[in-house]
Amino acid sequence: MNKNTDLPDIHYRRPEIKVSLNRVGIVGIKMPIGFLSLEEKPVILVPTFDAFVDLPMNVKGIHASRNYEVIMEVIGSQIGKVYKLEDVCAKMAKELLERHEYASRAEVRAKGEVIVDKLTLSTGIKSYETFDIFAQARVFKENGKLKLRKSVGVGVTGITACPCAQEVLKDISKKELAKSLSIEEDKVKMVLDAIPHGTHMQRAYGVIITEIPEKFSLDAKELVNIVELSMSSSTFGLLKRVDEANLVKEALSNPRFAEDVVRHMVISFIKEYKDFPDDTQVHFSVRSFESIHKHDFVAEISNNLGHIKKELNFSE
Amino acid sequence: MNKNTDLPDIHYRRPEIKVSLNRVGIVGIKMPIGFLSLEEKPVILVPTFDAFVDLPMNVKGIHASRNYEVIMEVIGSQIGKVYKLEDVCAKMAKELLERHEYASRAEVRAKGEVIVDKLTLSTGIKSYETFDIFAQARVFKENGKLKLRKSVGVGVTGITACPCAQEVLKDISKKELAKSLSIEEDKVKMVLDAIPHGTHMQRAYGVIITEIPEKFSLDAKELVNIVELSMSSSTFGLLKRVDEANLVKEALSNPRFAEDVVRHMVISFIKEYKDFPDDTQVHFSVRSFESIHKHDFVAEISNNLGHIKKELNFSE
Amino acid sequence: MNKNTDLPDIHYRRPEIKVSLNRVGIVGIKMPIGFLSLEEKPVILVPTFDAFVDLPMNVKGIHASRNYEVIMEVIGSQIGKVYKLEDVCAKMAKELLERHEYASRAEVRAKGEVIVDKLTLSTGIKSYETFDIFAQARVFKENGKLKLRKSVGVGVTGITACPCAQEVLKDISKKELAKSLSIEEDKVKMVLDAIPHGTHMQRAYGVIITEIPEKFSLDAKELVNIVELSMSSSTFGLLKRVDEANLVKEALSNPRFAEDVVRHMVISFIKEYKDFPDDTQVHFSVRSFESIHKHDFVAEISNNLGHIKKELNFSE
Amino acid sequence: MNKNTDLPDIHYRRPEIKVSLNRVGIVGIKMPIGFLSLEEKPVILVPTFDAFVDLPMNVKGIHASRNYEVIMEVIGSQIGKVYKLEDVCAKMAKELLERHEYASRAEVRAKGEVIVDKLTLSTGIKSYETFDIFAQARVFKENGKLKLRKSVGVGVTGITACPCAQEVLKDISKKELAKSLSIEEDKVKMVLDAIPHGTHMQRAYGVIITEIPEKFSLDAKELVNIVELSMSSSTFGLLKRVDEANLVKEALSNPRFAEDVVRHMVISFIKEYKDFPDDTQVHFSVRSFESIHKHDFVAEISNNLGHIKKELNFSE
Repeated sequence: MNKNTDLPDIHYRRPEIKVSLNRVGIVGIKMPIGFLSLEEKPVILVPTFDAFVDLPMNVKGIHASRNYEVIMEVIGSQIGKVYKLEDVCAKMAKELLERHEYASRAEVRAKGEVIVDKLTLSTGIKSYETFDIFAQARVFKENGKLKLRKSVGVGVTGITACPCAQEVLKDISKKELAKSLSIEEDKVKMVLDAIPHGTHMQRAYGVIITEIPEKFSLDAKELVNIVELSMSSSTFGLLKRVDEANLVKEALSNPRFAEDVVRHMVISFIKEYKDFPDDTQVHFSVRSFESIHKHDFVAEISNNLGHIKKELNFSE
Repeated sequence: MNKNTDLPDIHYRRPEIKVSLNRVGIVGIKMPIGFLSLEEKPVILVPTFDAFVDLPMNVKGIHASRNYEVIMEVIGSQIGKVYKLEDVCAKMAKELLERHEYASRAEVRAKGEVIVDKLTLSTGIKSYETFDIFAQARVFKENGKLKLRKSVGVGVTGITACPCAQEVLKDISKKELAKSLSIEEDKVKMVLDAIPHGTHMQRAYGVIITEIPEKFSLDAKELVNIVELSMSSSTFGLLKRVDEANLVKEALSNPRFAEDVVRHMVISFIKEYKDFPDDTQVHFSVRSFESIHKHDFVAEISNNLGHIKKELNFSE
Repeated sequence: MNKNTDLPDIHYRRPEIKVSLNRVGIVGIKMPIGFLSLEEKPVILVPTFDAFVDLPMNVKGIHASRNYEVIMEVIGSQIGKVYKLEDVCAKMAKELLERHEYASRAEVRAKGEVIVDKLTLSTGIKSYETFDIFAQARVFKENGKLKLRKSVGVGVTGITACPCAQEVLKDISKKELAKSLSIEEDKVKMVLDAIPHGTHMQRAYGVIITEIPEKFSLDAKELVNIVELSMSSSTFGLLKRVDEANLVKEALSNPRFAEDVVRHMVISFIKEYKDFPDDTQVHFSVRSFESIHKHDFVAEISNNLGHIKKELNFSE
Repeated sequence: MNKNTDLPDIHYRRPEIKVSLNRVGIVGIKMPIGFLSLEEKPVILVPTFDAFVDLPMNVKGIHASRNYEVIMEVIGSQIGKVYKLEDVCAKMAKELLERHEYASRAEVRAKGEVIVDKLTLSTGIKSYETFDIFAQARVFKENGKLKLRKSVGVGVTGITACPCAQEVLKDISKKELAKSLSIEEDKVKMVLDAIPHGTHMQRAYGVIITEIPEKFSLDAKELVNIVELSMSSSTFGLLKRVDEANLVKEALSNPRFAEDVVRHMVISFIKEYKDFPDDTQVHFSVRSFESIHKHDFVAEISNNLGHIKKELNFSE
């Protein structure tokens, strides 16, 4: 099959320095359109793939064109079918190990932007929302058997409204108002408690990444919902004036630190996937693009579900 | 001086296709530390330079190493001195034209991040703030004389608080409050008018770029002040709780669309530089990283001062 | 039609500072999949849109949700149809002017990545190649008539091989070889001339952007071909060993400065679009990611076709 | 000391959901100029800092202004002194733990660009070269004692020249040349072996990151040298024609896969730091911006020194 057998094949030579490499491969491969299963609806995305194998100490270099061929062929075989991105990665990783006879591990990562439609809060008009999807699959040989590890994640933009500035400002307003209008502080408080008091808001980017335990599967759109519901409010591409005011009201009525958002993501995740085994690795993070600073704020939990459940003293 | 005269010099050859190029050069040159005059204080930055000349139709290619040498030598000659970035660009542009004997135009652009200190609003603690600086100089021959055009600009992050959502939300709050607390709308309004009502806020990035007319000069820090004072509020690296609440109060008391911010930048600029001639080209823009959307909002004025002054019917 | 007429509408208010804005709008709108006419084949891409109108001096702010609606509705009306990206922009720009009754100009810009298939040089295997597409449309009123200006452009990665280093190195090799092997320089030269001599190569990114004159149209894929054929060689996602060697040979046999690539792009463009009127604005540029430097090199022509043709003394 | 004790302090409240966070803090803090010890010469850089602590399950949020103050004060106390970036991180991390009385771990990361001067290969002219520096320090309590872990790394751009394309192309050239010039293949081979045969080259970005074992220290500039010497050639800001030709010659005489570069980095590192303990974690990687593809190629070793030395069967 190889017509080039008379050409020198440098890759197979023995390297001068004998040490193995954990990961060798190609990154940033953009492939034409795919279909991703989200709520039974096919959704379009253009993912970017990275594909690696390990390289033993006695082989000089990998045949990188095989990595490209694997990505291209697996994508080609999927056209018109509905699949999960992490399953495509798994298929590619298995195929990589097949074709790089010298490798014992393979890893494929994919990321892409998914566009889904969503109705606005008050006027119910359709808007398009973008989220990031991350998928990964690793295959390796252990005790003569082929093992597979998959993970999937999402990154979603929402809003955080700061509870601290809100409460401090309310306290200042209460005192000033009582003084300037000559009303009792308690009466002023009654009014202030009844309205959504102002605070600083900003875009925040929430991420959930989870291993997918054997025999389980999940829909990335569920993770998107968890992130959106954990924020002070979600964002919308289209907002008419009344939608906008109600969104702001929702955010102000629901002030959350980045730390709070992460904790809400955790508890919702655990309720949704309560059967996932304790050794499932999960990552939850929020990056808040603070409107009052030029720098960002980050809050993060990276742990296994068993540890988190123990802290939460979780029982179904 | 040139020890390599026996080597082939391909650049001087006549090209196959005879057409001149407007701009040929090197981009992204990072040079070691410089000092920039801002309010008489030397300030440190690591600028990046782009340096171009034009190329006539009968020369194959430029000698790009000369561009690198010019940047390096001009920077070298400035060490320990206080200068304006646009003046360094001008010096480089003149030198480029000197060394590329085939060129009739030269252009140097520089950009960098400047870090300045600033005291917090309430507690008066020092904080460090970053802004972007852009400088440019072009030299060209016109009627046998060498002409120079310089410009300088800044990019500064601040906050915008939306006046529309604020007023709509206040209207909704007024009606709901009057109903739920059984108070007259007018009395509720009196309370609501006395406090800074909530709205959505976000980071916004304001830019002013101006030509520097002959015989004039300006200090980039003044442009920074104009951008900061045109926003709903400026941002701070360090904010203690009371600073933060007061900053939020300031922003809410000063709600502005991106369009408003641009207009405030224009009017302040014109007051500050009223002697600049009418043909001075200026650019003002604001990019608002909308917290309620995943996309951004942009407002922009690019015109000459004469046109703008006429619209404003400006008389000192 | 507007159910929210009882809400305050801040945007229509008169601004405090009376000055008009050239450009106000939303940027970075990602919309679900479109189809683009390239060589009669529908091609998939996920473009990003920016949509602006101008704002007169007596209106406080634009109703930005209308910009979003225009993008969404025009995209929605195109589903399943084959179109050119610049024509979609034109449709959006016209619609923007319709809905912003206070505006006199509208502008829509789109950019996206297009993925097309391509056969490798020697083995003829299919590979996927990505290029960037840029489109723009502006509409404005002039003497009571609606005018439309459209443009389209592409950005394509290829290879440049340096002719200068090649010739200088060849000269050095010739002398060294003649000496070390005790052969006459002329004989060595004969051998050296017969093989593709080594030089430095690098990725280069070529851009062509052109106005589309009234009653003309063009296919972005043709511009891609012009860029690819102007480079020392084009790049491929998939290359088997013999493909790779032949690609390197092609590049070495075809050494070009960035300046040469720009000039080749110009001449090919002019041959292809010889009927385009003289006032058509065109832009050609190459950015070379120099392998021997950490900085990049840029060459650029921005002019109208009439000026360029005159220089080339072009006659069909 | 806290003058704001009458203000509500939301951060200390007990959170609704009881789960601890691994990492909470501020990211992207740019601080004014520092001095870094490299070869005894002070070198200037503007680093960016990220500063985190962990957050126990019973505290709602961190007091983020303390993180900012720690960075600012430690930087302030260093002005005019020569230090290593990882030591500054360590000082900050210890101080963070001091001030966040609820935290049990702290972590500070810094990155920056360093500019150093370097003489060109042949003409010996000074040129400026940029590399990235990464530093990190973690402190945590273990068995009642405070533990510190530090690491430092560099990222350096160089050139890789492909050995595979070179050899295959040489093989093709040999056959073609023998045929076209009617010379014996062996004689042609003699000539071809004597010159640096052409191949594809590209920018490559090499990274070394290493833990710094207790009681050891290292100079980031040494790591830069290791990366540069492991490439086919290093790059230079300034190259006169003869420098450029010699650099190309060096790269062609020294063709290396990314895998080879990584292995050379490993062996040089191990020779230089042979006393580092076996449990020292190290990371070596190369990203090659392939000139023949639009995608990149990556090779990576992440392991502890003991494992690597065992593979290399290393004995001093």
